[in-house]
Amino acid sequence: MIRAQVVGATGYGGVGIVELLLRHPEVEITSLMGKQDVGQPLSSYFPHLQGFCDRVVEESDPERIGEGVDVVICSTPDRVGMQYAKRVLERGAALIDFSGDFRFRDPQVYAAYARFHPKTAGLPHAAPDLLAQATYGLPELFREQIREARLVGNPGCFAVAAILGLAPVVKEHLVELSSIVCDGKTGISGAGKKPSALHHFPERNENVAAYRIAQHQHSVEMEEVLSLLAGERVSLTFVPHLIPVTRGIICTIYATLRQQVKIETLQDLYTRFYAGSPFVRMRPPGSCAGLKSVIGSNFCDISLTVDDRNGRLVIVSWIDNLVKGQAGSALQNLNVMFGFPEEMGLDRPGFYP
Amino acid sequence: MIRAQVVGATGYGGVGIVELLLRHPEVEITSLMGKQDVGQPLSSYFPHLQGFCDRVVEESDPERIGEGVDVVICSTPDRVGMQYAKRVLERGAALIDFSGDFRFRDPQVYAAYARFHPKTAGLPHAAPDLLAQATYGLPELFREQIREARLVGNPGCFAVAAILGLAPVVKEHLVELSSIVCDGKTGISGAGKKPSALHHFPERNENVAAYRIAQHQHSVEMEEVLSLLAGERVSLTFVPHLIPVTRGIICTIYATLRQQVKIETLQDLYTRFYAGSPFVRMRPPGSCAGLKSVIGSNFCDISLTVDDRNGRLVIVSWIDNLVKGQAGSALQNLNVMFGFPEEMGLDRPGFYP
Amino acid sequence: MIRAQVVGATGYGGVGIVELLLRHPEVEITSLMGKQDVGQPLSSYFPHLQGFCDRVVEESDPERIGEGVDVVICSTPDRVGMQYAKRVLERGAALIDFSGDFRFRDPQVYAAYARFHPKTAGLPHAAPDLLAQATYGLPELFREQIREARLVGNPGCFAVAAILGLAPVVKEHLVELSSIVCDGKTGISGAGKKPSALHHFPERNENVAAYRIAQHQHSVEMEEVLSLLAGERVSLTFVPHLIPVTRGIICTIYATLRQQVKIETLQDLYTRFYAGSPFVRMRPPGSCAGLKSVIGSNFCDISLTVDDRNGRLVIVSWIDNLVKGQAGSALQNLNVMFGFPEEMGLDRPGFYP
Amino acid sequence: MIRAQVVGATGYGGVGIVELLLRHPEVEITSLMGKQDVGQPLSSYFPHLQGFCDRVVEESDPERIGEGVDVVICSTPDRVGMQYAKRVLERGAALIDFSGDFRFRDPQVYAAYARFHPKTAGLPHAAPDLLAQATYGLPELFREQIREARLVGNPGCFAVAAILGLAPVVKEHLVELSSIVCDGKTGISGAGKKPSALHHFPERNENVAAYRIAQHQHSVEMEEVLSLLAGERVSLTFVPHLIPVTRGIICTIYATLRQQVKIETLQDLYTRFYAGSPFVRMRPPGSCAGLKSVIGSNFCDISLTVDDRNGRLVIVSWIDNLVKGQAGSALQNLNVMFGFPEEMGLDRPGFYP
Repeated sequence: MIRAQVVGATGYGGVGIVELLLRHPEVEITSLMGKQDVGQPLSSYFPHLQGFCDRVVEESDPERIGEGVDVVICSTPDRVGMQYAKRVLERGAALIDFSGDFRFRDPQVYAAYARFHPKTAGLPHAAPDLLAQATYGLPELFREQIREARLVGNPGCFAVAAILGLAPVVKEHLVELSSIVCDGKTGISGAGKKPSALHHFPERNENVAAYRIAQHQHSVEMEEVLSLLAGERVSLTFVPHLIPVTRGIICTIYATLRQQVKIETLQDLYTRFYAGSPFVRMRPPGSCAGLKSVIGSNFCDISLTVDDRNGRLVIVSWIDNLVKGQAGSALQNLNVMFGFPEEMGLDRPGFYP
Repeated sequence: MIRAQVVGATGYGGVGIVELLLRHPEVEITSLMGKQDVGQPLSSYFPHLQGFCDRVVEESDPERIGEGVDVVICSTPDRVGMQYAKRVLERGAALIDFSGDFRFRDPQVYAAYARFHPKTAGLPHAAPDLLAQATYGLPELFREQIREARLVGNPGCFAVAAILGLAPVVKEHLVELSSIVCDGKTGISGAGKKPSALHHFPERNENVAAYRIAQHQHSVEMEEVLSLLAGERVSLTFVPHLIPVTRGIICTIYATLRQQVKIETLQDLYTRFYAGSPFVRMRPPGSCAGLKSVIGSNFCDISLTVDDRNGRLVIVSWIDNLVKGQAGSALQNLNVMFGFPEEMGLDRPGFYP
Repeated sequence: MIRAQVVGATGYGGVGIVELLLRHPEVEITSLMGKQDVGQPLSSYFPHLQGFCDRVVEESDPERIGEGVDVVICSTPDRVGMQYAKRVLERGAALIDFSGDFRFRDPQVYAAYARFHPKTAGLPHAAPDLLAQATYGLPELFREQIREARLVGNPGCFAVAAILGLAPVVKEHLVELSSIVCDGKTGISGAGKKPSALHHFPERNENVAAYRIAQHQHSVEMEEVLSLLAGERVSLTFVPHLIPVTRGIICTIYATLRQQVKIETLQDLYTRFYAGSPFVRMRPPGSCAGLKSVIGSNFCDISLTVDDRNGRLVIVSWIDNLVKGQAGSALQNLNVMFGFPEEMGLDRPGFYP
Repeated sequence: MIRAQVVGATGYGGVGIVELLLRHPEVEITSLMGKQDVGQPLSSYFPHLQGFCDRVVEESDPERIGEGVDVVICSTPDRVGMQYAKRVLERGAALIDFSGDFRFRDPQVYAAYARFHPKTAGLPHAAPDLLAQATYGLPELFREQIREARLVGNPGCFAVAAILGLAPVVKEHLVELSSIVCDGKTGISGAGKKPSALHHFPERNENVAAYRIAQHQHSVEMEEVLSLLAGERVSLTFVPHLIPVTRGIICTIYATLRQQVKIETLQDLYTRFYAGSPFVRMRPPGSCAGLKSVIGSNFCDISLTVDDRNGRLVIVSWIDNLVKGQAGSALQNLNVMFGFPEEMGLDRPGFYP
């Protein structure tokens, strides 16, 4: 039984990982910390947890972060985990961070990422010396490294869907690497629990909008990982959209095929590529089941279509942004790091209807 | 390990009970039957179940219903289960029926219920001799009878919320029994999986409507059970409304207090009344957490408010119509019938956000 | 051509009245004022108005409110209009106020209203001497008074639906005045444009909750007006609910009939009562068309059902909270005050689907 | 005053054009026809029209179509208008058809279009001799031809958004014509009023799915019109998505720039291109206001972003699928055909919030 501490327990990511850990047979939550909504049991802020988690949320205290636990999960905004990481590691605990703080080993790539968002732009990384030991927390691609890791940067939600959708063909150079376009659609929970004018119900309901057009920070993440796979620089155009659903991300990805290829060949390639990855499911070619096939689960579903008329591959990949795009991936990483079966605590179907 | 057969497996109720049974440690699904969507694995009709339930759905065959199983769960419309019940019981299996067919022991009460719906109005019960052994499947009120039962009428979704909300004060005669008004609001999944003009997305989205005003068949069920509790005839006004959410029922219930009573007294009464019922949770007086506290779970949450100015009690009770209002109650009944812990396979919090 | 000034032009109420005035042939907007979102054209804050209203929003300036205009429309929160009213009237302009500031002629009733809301509780009215000349802005009941009025308190959104639904039977004493229960359901725009945790998209989407149970300030308004009609004190229980739609209010009202009465008699009574009121439409008895019949329009639709079994009348009344519940009523009041046809600028059907 | 007949008056398209014509000062509706929902006043099927359109819907009768009217508007599915067109024209009436029947002058292109949809695939055009006189009803591109036309094929909803978004850069050859990708998102009303399993509320709510991936019939329409503009063959990849909103289409379009170009240059190009087109509005570069800026209006809003890193242009264009994508374009065409001001009856802002 390992002991876990959740920092930022009262955001959507925090409550998500708490819910998962509560049902995990090998992990015990020993402390919950937060910045807002502190001093009361978690269930007083989240009534659905009444009877499930009555542990009090304490105010985040740097002195106590990482103390007496095996793993710290920081479900905190950018630039928080980097303040705590050194101490956590020194205290012998592992760290899984939900923000972009530890997704890049190279400080320059981090800077490129940080540049895209007003809250991080221009600020230097606070723990640049730790970056070299950080691992990108996408087990489907970096399972072996995560097994050895003590410091894991949990991936961005859009990045999970886009990278899993593209990895096999990018690695095999079956598509023109300069031709990739990713059109992303996300539910509103991706913006977190903090209210804002943009995410006010009457503004988002019955509305769809593109935002940060070709300027979203997750594109840096996609490009970094895909470049690593390709062995050469990959650059792509990514445009996210806000969709009036609570949960879910769907990425529709377009890329020019380098040569004619049969859909069966591609389907086989993906099936083999993800053979050891229980949370990636290939859907029948040409079809898209829709978000409901994954919502509430840790699955990434992928569909492939060849547009013969235009020599283009269309990949659709979709996830629950709060599970495979956040807390579920975190638990999957934890399982890999601590030697538990990868599916432990995550083995359930989507929430339908 | 008991063997279960699900009839009507491809409706919302059927897929709901299948999902629950898949995670139940003491039940094994040995057969799935349906009327539409037959001949393929269940997961081909419900992509979220890919990898979880690849059992083929067979066409419903009266000859095989109840054969070689310990329990049959009929997630079928009114007037189907009553055709199968005799044979199921003769074959030694227990039957849990989701329709109104076995919710009433008295054929005349059944007729009063049937009158309210065009699909059942005027038709006689097909197995009137079995009614006397039918048990109303609300464990919070009839736990002992369900323990002995072989034939359980799973309750109507609105009835679950209304009856649990009213039971303690009706039993104690703390409210005027002729003063009860129940204003119900339901998500659209309550209408089932079959498409119709009324439940077409553009018609229901951004819309709210009352329907079957003071004419809904579940009011018979509420009145029957509450009368039993009160020891005298209870009649109430029930008006359901369609709300543009997928899941959830919330009943706001109004009743005149027979005498002044403190909210603490009422809160205590309810707490004691439901002390042995793990799926009823009292919320703090005067507050209503909203559907999200129960969606995806088997809980019925209840809030009480005394309107001193008008000598009236306001009870708000809410459930997930597909769980506590249908498949969850069915599994709870099964647990009670077969001697498993009542919470087995149902012990999880709501789905948030 | 009369000149209108809109104060609070950048909230939902403000932009709503601006949209209506832009299409009114006899009114010219000569000034827009606001507190936030000032200094730019209105269309820069509300892109749908690009090309329709490029007038700059100025910062609210008490010195300039009412200056050189015929009417001031204050779409401002409680306690703002009362600061401006004296000056507006002195300058010879009329005032229509959207808040509760001028809905009551009696300071004590105002205090009872103010007590219900944390933002107004305990604070004295700032212009008590003006209350005696204030008129309640519901033309269906107070048309003659509004015709003469210079100071109109535009009614609360829930109050419009509830009062119009109840007025005929309350006036005729056909129901027990102590038996009235009003179950209200509102879209989220009723909470205004300012974001908050309660109205954050992921919290309200797929959710329904009761709030301020039997404690909502609009109940004072309903009771005051209905008491006036009845000639005796009317007290009722009102429970509002938040529904995940942008617009619309539906009130389901329950009252005990004093004696048996045929539905046709009631239907006739209502039809006659509202004969001269173009914005009240009676629906066929027993049916409810749903919010979509009124959304985007100034109509209040009403349906009646007699629950013979329980001797109770069920009234369902529904409006667009931002039109008949706010800006539409304001324009209707303006038309009456200035002698324009009551329907001018308001004569359009609902927005469907 | 011209006389209009609406065929297919009880679908979303039909009721949409009826609503617009009711407010048009120069058009009088003289007959409504339909296939389902006939024999009663239109308002009995559409309660929001109570008091606005109580004209009875007659059963479609080929003998009477086009009789005694100046224009027939066929809001009918594919393959209906083509049965009526000859007679309508012979009777001296003009015809505006909402389906794909008259969008193509070349029977072979029609066949290519028809191939994409199961309901039209393989069936020959029923009035091939009329195709040569058909005009594509997009006034922004074909205003002069529409002015002379008697037979107008109203454009497909996705095609309107995509073509308006692309026309200026395609005509000027500023993008690689083989590089165009169009990612479309549509509200559910685009599927029409007829219920189906796919558009059942619980299936579409909280869901997003791609469909007919690179196989949608509107892509033929886009390619045909863009090829005409470019003077050479344009082929593109189009993937539509179902989004849980009632109304609205947003197309996010990606194309490789042939050479570096400043955003200001492109913005100028579009502004000039659409200078005489009152219903196309350019938004500030790099931003997207979202569907709410156009819903309920006849506008197509367009935003441009240059992705310098990848040498790509991102165009976002959005419309109300039932207005600019259907009935609004039809009225705009009618205005042009009959010499009325192009904006007559269409000059109103979007519906907000």
